[in-house]
Amino acid sequence: MGSKYPPSLQVCLPRWALMLEATFIFIFFFYTSYDTSSKNQKTLRETYRAFQDVTVMAALGMGFLASSLRRYSWSSVAFSLFLLVLGVQWALLLDGFLENFSNGKVVIRLLSIQLATMSAMSVLISLGAIQGKANLLQLAVMVPLEVTAFSTMRMVNRRFLSIDDHANMMHIYVFSAYFGLTVAYCLSRRLPSGTQEKDRTATSPSLFAMLGTLFLWTFWPSFNCALLNDPNERKNAIFNTYYALAVSTVTATSVSAWAHPKGKINMTHIHNAVLAGGVAVGASCHLISSPWLAMVLGFVAGLISSAGAECLPVCFNQVLGLHDTCGVYYTFSLPGLLGGITYIVLLTLQISWTKNSMFAPKSQNMERTSCN
Amino acid sequence: MGSKYPPSLQVCLPRWALMLEATFIFIFFFYTSYDTSSKNQKTLRETYRAFQDVTVMAALGMGFLASSLRRYSWSSVAFSLFLLVLGVQWALLLDGFLENFSNGKVVIRLLSIQLATMSAMSVLISLGAIQGKANLLQLAVMVPLEVTAFSTMRMVNRRFLSIDDHANMMHIYVFSAYFGLTVAYCLSRRLPSGTQEKDRTATSPSLFAMLGTLFLWTFWPSFNCALLNDPNERKNAIFNTYYALAVSTVTATSVSAWAHPKGKINMTHIHNAVLAGGVAVGASCHLISSPWLAMVLGFVAGLISSAGAECLPVCFNQVLGLHDTCGVYYTFSLPGLLGGITYIVLLTLQISWTKNSMFAPKSQNMERTSCN
Amino acid sequence: MGSKYPPSLQVCLPRWALMLEATFIFIFFFYTSYDTSSKNQKTLRETYRAFQDVTVMAALGMGFLASSLRRYSWSSVAFSLFLLVLGVQWALLLDGFLENFSNGKVVIRLLSIQLATMSAMSVLISLGAIQGKANLLQLAVMVPLEVTAFSTMRMVNRRFLSIDDHANMMHIYVFSAYFGLTVAYCLSRRLPSGTQEKDRTATSPSLFAMLGTLFLWTFWPSFNCALLNDPNERKNAIFNTYYALAVSTVTATSVSAWAHPKGKINMTHIHNAVLAGGVAVGASCHLISSPWLAMVLGFVAGLISSAGAECLPVCFNQVLGLHDTCGVYYTFSLPGLLGGITYIVLLTLQISWTKNSMFAPKSQNMERTSCN
Repeated sequence: MGSKYPPSLQVCLPRWALMLEATFIFIFFFYTSYDTSSKNQKTLRETYRAFQDVTVMAALGMGFLASSLRRYSWSSVAFSLFLLVLGVQWALLLDGFLENFSNGKVVIRLLSIQLATMSAMSVLISLGAIQGKANLLQLAVMVPLEVTAFSTMRMVNRRFLSIDDHANMMHIYVFSAYFGLTVAYCLSRRLPSGTQEKDRTATSPSLFAMLGTLFLWTFWPSFNCALLNDPNERKNAIFNTYYALAVSTVTATSVSAWAHPKGKINMTHIHNAVLAGGVAVGASCHLISSPWLAMVLGFVAGLISSAGAECLPVCFNQVLGLHDTCGVYYTFSLPGLLGGITYIVLLTLQISWTKNSMFAPKSQNMERTSCN
Repeated sequence: MGSKYPPSLQVCLPRWALMLEATFIFIFFFYTSYDTSSKNQKTLRETYRAFQDVTVMAALGMGFLASSLRRYSWSSVAFSLFLLVLGVQWALLLDGFLENFSNGKVVIRLLSIQLATMSAMSVLISLGAIQGKANLLQLAVMVPLEVTAFSTMRMVNRRFLSIDDHANMMHIYVFSAYFGLTVAYCLSRRLPSGTQEKDRTATSPSLFAMLGTLFLWTFWPSFNCALLNDPNERKNAIFNTYYALAVSTVTATSVSAWAHPKGKINMTHIHNAVLAGGVAVGASCHLISSPWLAMVLGFVAGLISSAGAECLPVCFNQVLGLHDTCGVYYTFSLPGLLGGITYIVLLTLQISWTKNSMFAPKSQNMERTSCN
Repeated sequence: MGSKYPPSLQVCLPRWALMLEATFIFIFFFYTSYDTSSKNQKTLRETYRAFQDVTVMAALGMGFLASSLRRYSWSSVAFSLFLLVLGVQWALLLDGFLENFSNGKVVIRLLSIQLATMSAMSVLISLGAIQGKANLLQLAVMVPLEVTAFSTMRMVNRRFLSIDDHANMMHIYVFSAYFGLTVAYCLSRRLPSGTQEKDRTATSPSLFAMLGTLFLWTFWPSFNCALLNDPNERKNAIFNTYYALAVSTVTATSVSAWAHPKGKINMTHIHNAVLAGGVAVGASCHLISSPWLAMVLGFVAGLISSAGAECLPVCFNQVLGLHDTCGVYYTFSLPGLLGGITYIVLLTLQISWTKNSMFAPKSQNMERTSCN
């Protein structure tokens, strides 16, 4: 049970974190100011609610989701919060300088903190793959790297491919999963053994992980509709996310019972596969106009995710030498890819939509187009 | 500690759940469409908030409330979510075909998902009585049966007795408690022994149960005012539910300390009796126009519930051969009956209200009537 | 493990609590009525949201925050709820008679319940200092005393010093911390020994405490902006609270790693020091008009709080004979004092603000003044 931390951690972590924080304070001092345009109180409160939902997902949901490992239940929750706030500040400055920089000042809006929180969630998703492999210093160095990479990718997408904010943000699942797995792959070279016994789960931490899952499950519709402006698209996003989550819950539970020799339900499957529907439906949730498609997506995502949880760890651990502790690959990456493919297919079909109404009856479809 | 699951569970549960889910997807494909009327964004957001509160109560509150049993803490949380989503989909279709069926399509609104979630909560309330007796397959079969029974009862009430939505929904406590107890009675014939040691509580799961209790306690006013439209009735519902919950908390804690030989507080009493006030005030919360009546209701409900928790288990377990694991009878059934009686008495008194203002001073009362 | 409760507790606690509750019901019967002015539904819902956030902080946040002690994890959560509801009812009546008493009736508004909940939180803050020293009867007697003292102080401040509601409420941290420490000091005379082993922490309860911390962390901006009316001040309060909390999280984690010989992170530091930023920024959060000042405040508060957690317990326990179980002194009292000093300095500077714009560039500042 001896600490595996290198002795230099005691010196380096506080130095790095406090230096980073001091830099943040200096940059905030010289280059930022609050948004002082007088919006009415109602808009403020509504933005605040949406921002609060995202923060609940990031701090409570993602924090507790990773707490199921026996030895890392405490640190995962505490580390998550630390990495979240570092990531939010960095993303806020980065987004500000890349997008909202005018008159020598970055104007900070409530919406920009919300966007920064969503960007910083990429770090928390990646954290699942490297839990127990990296120490806090390595993680604190990873935060600015990953947030910079993600923000740059989003800026390139927006400027040069003119992808809108919502679709842009939905790359987060695939991006973070592969980023996390790459980092885990690099780190596992250095720490090749001794991590085998670390990913056992325990009952009480598993309930905490379920708490995180339930927070994410409840507030996922808020996440998927956060960057949509049109009320109809927003409504569709809420509906479709809910349906996809519901069906992936049923699928994950069934497949888990089916795979167990005694018909019992595996905790790890539930923690992750339940959320696969929300990931898969993310990119296209505002385009889908009737529930069955979201449900099919949730079904396939639940299936992929559960099957992945059953089969992939063996392959990953022994063949690739990779160790995906919290199942990031089959929770976020594979359903995210499924969602991306669906999005492209839907967009392609939508071009010929006025002629051929496959996804909704014609009258309905016309009405929808007219009221937008 | 060997599994008591029959060997067929492994085959049957996934088959039943996936078949049900496939049927849902087919029905949703042919018969449903989203509501595409363009409401303004504010109404959408407000409905979404109310829907979110109910989902938090169902997924987080009811899920963790039942987690206090030592051997079932994990399964209760995971099963709750599974049963909830099955129930919501079934209730949505059922309500749709019974109420909103027009032009060959069921139109799905955010409000109808909220209503379906509230209907599906009946399954979670019943779950408390049969925790540890039924396996997941039996529970998955119970879901459509109970939801159908509850929805049919609501439809009959609305069509033939013209009871409004709010009063209708408040039957949920009594209905679910007796439904659950009946199922528990039938099942206990088949599993007569060995369940004695199952309902021991542990400290850590007990804190999870308290988490569920606190979620329910905090969001209960949202549940009781969810189906009311008049702002004044809604305000009264919030006030009265809060007061009744507050007083039943004080009563439950006091009675629990009083009943214990050393003056200690029994966890089980607190988990359940604290909520009795919210149950009792449910049906009449919009009619009561001053706090004292809600407080008296909360006091009596807390008293009944605590006394029930102290005395009834002995009676139930040994005389009736029934085993009410989570105290559904004295948490939901008895306070629910008290609430029903109060509702009837209040309605009877309200008929002669213009003459006799017993519950509020006359001037106040007149004002209230005039501004409605 | 024998109970230290005096035998009289069994008789006294229920008697005192039920008598208090009966008195409440009588006073509510004769002297209160609901607010029946017909506000529109939107205002009601928004007030209800703010009220709900404060209740989540009080019931879930404060309840679980104190649950990290091994022997008191259960009782702290259950006692918190009991004390909260007693405190809310008492504060409601007291505020009503001191402020809203007209025509022989106290008119109860949703806002007054929210204010009462915030007053009752003073008891929960003090509870942290006396956890494990006082029994439930002593705590139930303390509730009316502390709430009366706090409400009277607020009334005197408002009437004679004309301090506004927001600044008034922000005295809560310092007031409650010193109140709690005084009570702990008096009680520790009577129970001089045997409390040494009581404040050990355990892993699973520590996760519950983290849950409480995260709830408080997430909803703290709601608390700090709850009593502000101007949209711009409200926005500033949300921004500044968030920044201060973020920076104090980074500082607390770094200092904790720095102080530990192996660079590990101390749970107790995180639980409390993370919140120090929110306490410190409370009084002046609506006055600060650019983020760097809030960040510096969060930094200093995190530093004070972590250093206090490291050094003060030794001093407190052995020199003063005081036993501050949950670190109330360095979480609430010291950062609260820091916040008070900042508030006074800012007010003094603001008088000469039109001439000298130190905290914001001139144009900005003018704009802000003009749009208020």
